[in-house]
Amino acid sequence: MSIANTPEPPYVAVIFTSVRTPVDEGYAVTSEEMVSMAAGQPGFLGMESARGTDGLGITVSYWRDMESVRAWKAVAEHRTAQRLGRERWYRAYRTRISLVEREYGFSTER
Amino acid sequence: MSIANTPEPPYVAVIFTSVRTPVDEGYAVTSEEMVSMAAGQPGFLGMESARGTDGLGITVSYWRDMESVRAWKAVAEHRTAQRLGRERWYRAYRTRISLVEREYGFSTER
Repeated sequence: MSIANTPEPPYVAVIFTSVRTPVDEGYAVTSEEMVSMAAGQPGFLGMESARGTDGLGITVSYWRDMESVRAWKAVAEHRTAQRLGRERWYRAYRTRISLVEREYGFSTER
Repeated sequence: MSIANTPEPPYVAVIFTSVRTPVDEGYAVTSEEMVSMAAGQPGFLGMESARGTDGLGITVSYWRDMESVRAWKAVAEHRTAQRLGRERWYRAYRTRISLVEREYGFSTER
């Protein structure tokens, strides 16, 4: 995982914050499948993900527009993964759909 | 850290994604000071933070409006911390200022 190389705003950021259950069954495989499927969706711009040792995880996916986000949310495999997430893997989560207006950064590598 | 209990949108999310250097000098203390100072700022709504074992960290802070974000960015101690961040602690970072339009969630505890 590295910092997503997003274009000039505006674009959409979907902030998914979650707390996991201790259940691991199927999690890693499904998680990888969802990252791979999302990356193949129209309008996908990038993704960043981190989970701390305290169990709190944040995944931010970036999209060209709201329509791309709606389309990804409706994909059948993604809907199944969301249901399994509520049933098995997540104690709690929150999804926030936001419009990125400004962006700035710093890198020692540029 | 837990999922921030934010109000009904709209509100502002500042997504700060970073990759650390190996330098730890002063990092933990300054980081804690900044969290504490941010929480005391007008318009602060909450914060979520996670850093994975691969070194990628995501901190999202939530604010009532853009004016609150600008005011926090201009606080002298915060400016000093930002400078030290570029000089010492971060190999790269990106800050994205976004307006949260929708939010939904799930919790087994409610």
